Amino acid sequence: MFPHYAKRAISVVAPMLVAAASLIARAQDPLPAWNDGPAKDAILQFVGDTTEASSAKFVPPDKRIATFDQDGTLWVEKPMYTQVVYAFERVPSIVKEKPSLKNVEPYKTILTGDHEAIAKLPMKDLNVLLATAFSGMDVEQFRTEVNNWFDAAKDHRWKRPYTDLIYLPMLELMRYLRANGYKTYIVTGGGQDFVRVYANKVYGVPPEQIVGTMGETKYGYDNEGRPTLMKEPKLLLLDDKTGKPEGIHMMIGRRPHAAFGNSDGDRQMLEYTGAGDGARLMMIVMHDDARREYAYGPANGLPNSKVGTFTQALYDESKDKGWTVISMKNDWKRIFSFEN
Amino acid sequence: MFPHYAKRAISVVAPMLVAAASLIARAQDPLPAWNDGPAKDAILQFVGDTTEASSAKFVPPDKRIATFDQDGTLWVEKPMYTQVVYAFERVPSIVKEKPSLKNVEPYKTILTGDHEAIAKLPMKDLNVLLATAFSGMDVEQFRTEVNNWFDAAKDHRWKRPYTDLIYLPMLELMRYLRANGYKTYIVTGGGQDFVRVYANKVYGVPPEQIVGTMGETKYGYDNEGRPTLMKEPKLLLLDDKTGKPEGIHMMIGRRPHAAFGNSDGDRQMLEYTGAGDGARLMMIVMHDDARREYAYGPANGLPNSKVGTFTQALYDESKDKGWTVISMKNDWKRIFSFEN
Repeated sequence: MFPHYAKRAISVVAPMLVAAASLIARAQDPLPAWNDGPAKDAILQFVGDTTEASSAKFVPPDKRIATFDQDGTLWVEKPMYTQVVYAFERVPSIVKEKPSLKNVEPYKTILTGDHEAIAKLPMKDLNVLLATAFSGMDVEQFRTEVNNWFDAAKDHRWKRPYTDLIYLPMLELMRYLRANGYKTYIVTGGGQDFVRVYANKVYGVPPEQIVGTMGETKYGYDNEGRPTLMKEPKLLLLDDKTGKPEGIHMMIGRRPHAAFGNSDGDRQMLEYTGAGDGARLMMIVMHDDARREYAYGPANGLPNSKVGTFTQALYDESKDKGWTVISMKNDWKRIFSFEN
Repeated sequence: MFPHYAKRAISVVAPMLVAAASLIARAQDPLPAWNDGPAKDAILQFVGDTTEASSAKFVPPDKRIATFDQDGTLWVEKPMYTQVVYAFERVPSIVKEKPSLKNVEPYKTILTGDHEAIAKLPMKDLNVLLATAFSGMDVEQFRTEVNNWFDAAKDHRWKRPYTDLIYLPMLELMRYLRANGYKTYIVTGGGQDFVRVYANKVYGVPPEQIVGTMGETKYGYDNEGRPTLMKEPKLLLLDDKTGKPEGIHMMIGRRPHAAFGNSDGDRQMLEYTGAGDGARLMMIVMHDDARREYAYGPANGLPNSKVGTFTQALYDESKDKGWTVISMKNDWKRIFSFEN
């Protein structure tokens, strides 16, 4: 069907196009916000090893699973987890709906607006608040509430929406992994339904790829007989520490090949990932850049903090097991997309 | 770069190739095991409506979620759910590991091999057995046990591996939906980890797309310090009736656009699916073919049965809400791939 001169033209041109495309691909750095160094090298090496069909470490596409902690790994967790800020700001509505709570902790202290007293509230009280703020309504109403809050709320330091405070290098890493056939999951101690509200828009991670702390829902009907799914204040899985591999098994059903965290809450997820055979990549983000972001955590020679604790023990384990520590200060050329 | 004659040859040939491919595609019936009729029409109409960009009922690719019940919808559930057969056959090993159970129900009756007595065991006792048979080991050991069992076990009527007893028309339907951008999920009352063992091989549904009855796992370490995930006998979610939309929300986080079931256990999943806006497809498989498979259920004018109850009430609700009942006898040209 092809005249022979056309065939010949194609046979000459096609390899040239392939060669040109490959040159362009190589010239494009998939991780431009990363400085050259051991962290970037570890990523490039892992992706190369697991996606090159001739490699002994090749991983078939349907087994390419990568899991990311969120707070402190994908976005800023200081001075407070975003979902805790959300819960605090829900308090006036909660008390309006149920006025008797006005004199009950932690609502009483939160309503005073006294920052020092609020900072001293015990974890137990905060958990009561979270359970209340994250329940008592239909899943779709909850989605709307959270969505509206994110549209208006701003972080105090950068005066920007919280969803702007994601780390550009980690976003590049997620995209690079996806471009190489990896399915990216968020595995977070945060509320699963909370993170689902913005994760698709912000990180490109759809609702079914969010593994988080799960509460019970209850199927029922509204006054017009329409099905509802009410969020109940009953915890099903606390997706933190040992809960992370447990949540991964429940939601994904297979062991990840790569896992990224920043604190002791991620230790078991990294151990579980690293215990698989073949190539596995485990990385921990270290917050050591007080100027561009925050610096905290004992592994970093700094005092402990209520959130995102990177202990000396975790640091030692990561050295022992060959996990890669990412220094925000040294490994990241840029931190946020809104800054150069 | 292209000489003009080569360009011309391509500009002539390319549209011819496109037209030929489109003709071939149209000539291929995507559902050859289905007879022409209202069920097949409903499927073709739904897929056309939701995937044609100019359609008012268009559904963006990332929202194309379809959920399938398993037992009685994707494969044979008679005379007993396959996972119950598995649990029965595990009894000798269970008793060997813990001899005191020999004199405890339901183990005592099962060990007699008396079919009539076994058939009379109360559901409560069967649940105890299932919880025991599906726990007490690491998730990977469980996978191996179940895999080995499926390699050897055979159904009594067809003398074939249980995984051969899947319905060819439903397999075609899953493949057709996937070819049109739908993500297919199994939403089953069966054990999530049990179904995960074979679902990828048998249906092309990967572990992360199996929503089933979930038990707790516990993260720990073996004697050599390697991470383990032990299956505990504690129920987290019974994925049946109201548990189906609850499990869908937990594992998928969005409402399906299509749902397929066969019994009262699927009613809430179909209601939840149908309550969404835009195009939604709800279908129920009716077992009315005693010759080629089984016939049972009140909706079908037949006595109630312990498994897969399709009640008159569900039948009425499906007529009322415009759900499509699939008659195995009339709508399916073939039932199994091993028969013509």
